Amino acid sequence: MDFSINNFFDRKHKDSKIGHFQDLEHIDGLSVSTVSSGLYDKKRDDLVLFYFRDGVNYASLFTQSKIISENIKWNKRIKEKKIFGLLINTRNANALTGKDGYNSLKKISLKLSKLLSDKQTLDEDEPKKIKPGHILFACTGTIGEKFPEKKITDNLFNLVEKIKYTQNKLIWIKAALGIMTTDTKPKLSMAECKVGNSDVKIYGMAKGSGMIFPNMATTLGFIFTDANISSSVLKQVLNLNVKTTFNAISVDGDCSTNDMISIFSTAKSSNKQINSINDPKLKNFISSVHEVMLNLAKRVVSDGEGATKFVIVKCKNSKSEKEAKNICFSIANSPLVKTALFGQDPNWGRIAMAIGKSGSKVNTEKLTIMIGSHIVLHKGKLEKNYNESDVAQYMKNENIEICVDLSIGSKHFTAYSTDLSNEYIQINSDYRS
Amino acid sequence: MDFSINNFFDRKHKDSKIGHFQDLEHIDGLSVSTVSSGLYDKKRDDLVLFYFRDGVNYASLFTQSKIISENIKWNKRIKEKKIFGLLINTRNANALTGKDGYNSLKKISLKLSKLLSDKQTLDEDEPKKIKPGHILFACTGTIGEKFPEKKITDNLFNLVEKIKYTQNKLIWIKAALGIMTTDTKPKLSMAECKVGNSDVKIYGMAKGSGMIFPNMATTLGFIFTDANISSSVLKQVLNLNVKTTFNAISVDGDCSTNDMISIFSTAKSSNKQINSINDPKLKNFISSVHEVMLNLAKRVVSDGEGATKFVIVKCKNSKSEKEAKNICFSIANSPLVKTALFGQDPNWGRIAMAIGKSGSKVNTEKLTIMIGSHIVLHKGKLEKNYNESDVAQYMKNENIEICVDLSIGSKHFTAYSTDLSNEYIQINSDYRS
Repeated sequence: MDFSINNFFDRKHKDSKIGHFQDLEHIDGLSVSTVSSGLYDKKRDDLVLFYFRDGVNYASLFTQSKIISENIKWNKRIKEKKIFGLLINTRNANALTGKDGYNSLKKISLKLSKLLSDKQTLDEDEPKKIKPGHILFACTGTIGEKFPEKKITDNLFNLVEKIKYTQNKLIWIKAALGIMTTDTKPKLSMAECKVGNSDVKIYGMAKGSGMIFPNMATTLGFIFTDANISSSVLKQVLNLNVKTTFNAISVDGDCSTNDMISIFSTAKSSNKQINSINDPKLKNFISSVHEVMLNLAKRVVSDGEGATKFVIVKCKNSKSEKEAKNICFSIANSPLVKTALFGQDPNWGRIAMAIGKSGSKVNTEKLTIMIGSHIVLHKGKLEKNYNESDVAQYMKNENIEICVDLSIGSKHFTAYSTDLSNEYIQINSDYRS
Repeated sequence: MDFSINNFFDRKHKDSKIGHFQDLEHIDGLSVSTVSSGLYDKKRDDLVLFYFRDGVNYASLFTQSKIISENIKWNKRIKEKKIFGLLINTRNANALTGKDGYNSLKKISLKLSKLLSDKQTLDEDEPKKIKPGHILFACTGTIGEKFPEKKITDNLFNLVEKIKYTQNKLIWIKAALGIMTTDTKPKLSMAECKVGNSDVKIYGMAKGSGMIFPNMATTLGFIFTDANISSSVLKQVLNLNVKTTFNAISVDGDCSTNDMISIFSTAKSSNKQINSINDPKLKNFISSVHEVMLNLAKRVVSDGEGATKFVIVKCKNSKSEKEAKNICFSIANSPLVKTALFGQDPNWGRIAMAIGKSGSKVNTEKLTIMIGSHIVLHKGKLEKNYNESDVAQYMKNENIEICVDLSIGSKHFTAYSTDLSNEYIQINSDYRS
């Protein structure tokens, strides 16, 4: 894949299934820098730095995997109230690299914090001393390989040198390209809203390629805002929104060794700091963050390895949300359903089978299955007017919706998924993809 | 696929990964008959009848799916102590066919029992009256399509007409071919042992194609023995053996709408009826049934759609068997591990990722991963002598073993799986495969 910006800028960053992303511009208090440190054989950016000159409030959600990468361990131990940098590297996950992998992060953070402190001395009236504990790390790539500490440290000077205090859409696309692994498209999203009377921006960037089981792909999501919000409220905003966004594209939400979703608030907007999740001034902000996160999550799914379809799976009127979610993911993750989608075959029997094996409560006589606007099964019986060729025609769309109505309760869930194509096998069976 | 016997007889029924199956011969008290009732466009046998002229003790395990087929409902309602027939049809699962599907079975069993009663009158000195409730049904095929009652009833006469009281290996292969759907190979297995001083035979036949998630494929398994064993003991023998055989090739063991494993005892051997699972005379029998069931289960996996590898996944020294099983299936069912296996790539990071996301307890510092006899990760660290090219060479084998040693307990589990190839996608995305 060609990582040159020209391939994505204006022309190729369009996703026919999700639509254009809007252009991201400047957020006060945030800078972006990218370099190639030679982690790949081919020349491409592989190190991306977000630098927050005045520090930021922040919050993160991490993978629930029982095996976590060294950088997730590092991030979990950070005690600083504000952080000043987020360094993302690709190619190497720094997972199962043991103490060596952790020590590499120590050394890198030591050097990077020193370089950033020097930059503060040069640029700021009241320079802050930046410490190793002010740096967050995101790593993604192959597990178990020695972490390329030297290549990264060798390029930190260059990375800090390239920091510019103003961003434009070009630098955002460069950053989104720089954190990609098997992704084929950069993922950016934005929203604007008011917090009280102040205009605030919410910018988002993500990485991840929604596979059969997205929980096996490292998903990174970063949300940046100039709204002035406390770290504890940021954490609650993430928790409120993750269930129906990033966790609606994977079974347990966060199961690679390296998954990480973070939100950073530069507090440069004029709003008075929000310290409670119940503050009515926060309402629009919460829904705008949701919009950005959902858009990013959909882009991750839509960029599924080899995906030719974007699939929305809804389960309605279940006894509990958990049971609705089970059914959604049983369908969304079923290789038989996925291959039928790829084959554009309205094989609804496979959907029924996936519902049955989910373990969720089902009353067959109340079960209704729809594909798009076509009722297939109605209250447990094949719909009288069911016309397979109509549904086969619908299956040719790029966007497919499957809706299961259990009619036994009042809970709902929606999951987002893809089909399963030959190309998926190709990508993943290529030696060390 | 060519369903003519010549393709399998002697020549093609060899499975290079599992080895030849032995030739099955005659079991007293059992007859087999097969016909084509035109359920497929192409000419192939699609109805298989096992007829037990003197009735048999029997026991079954059925799918745990929340949506079960009409024939499973039928079978669960049977109250007769002995049954006289097992009718298997392919092409149509009789699932989500509602009352119509159930009523079809009523009519078929009525006609079939009458035909068999007539046969009894002709052939037996003391003819028995065979009732609809003496017939078990196994169905496999597409879900939700109208059950082809007429085609089946129209061919029952012919089916009963073709019953011969002696079997040879040819008729067993014909029967095993007759119950196949996406299978590419018939599946037969046998063992002989002693119950007390009596020689007994244990013959097995199965259907199922071990896919990514075998729990989505209908698995049918039928065990026939001439040993004299009560139905309740037969049930316990099934329960004892299913966990490490048919349930070791699927997540929850029995999750299609139609799964069914049955055992039938004609009691023609000279042993005195066994009425307790603890009877010491039963010991060899239990392990021989295990041997037959494991062999069949392996054949199901090995015939995985598009499978090029047979993979054994072991998890050792876990806190509980459940946790070991979780890890085995997390690895066995991971599309990323499966595609790496297809690509012959010793990408053990994906194995580690699958262990992590399983949810089972892991102490990274005690974790050891082996591929074949090659130690890859030793107590959480990349093995000093790890040589990737050696392991890459090993990955070229048709039989691959992955072993995870948690070193935190004393429980074990072994699962059986396959790789994931382009051909899988091809088979399953073909319109109504």
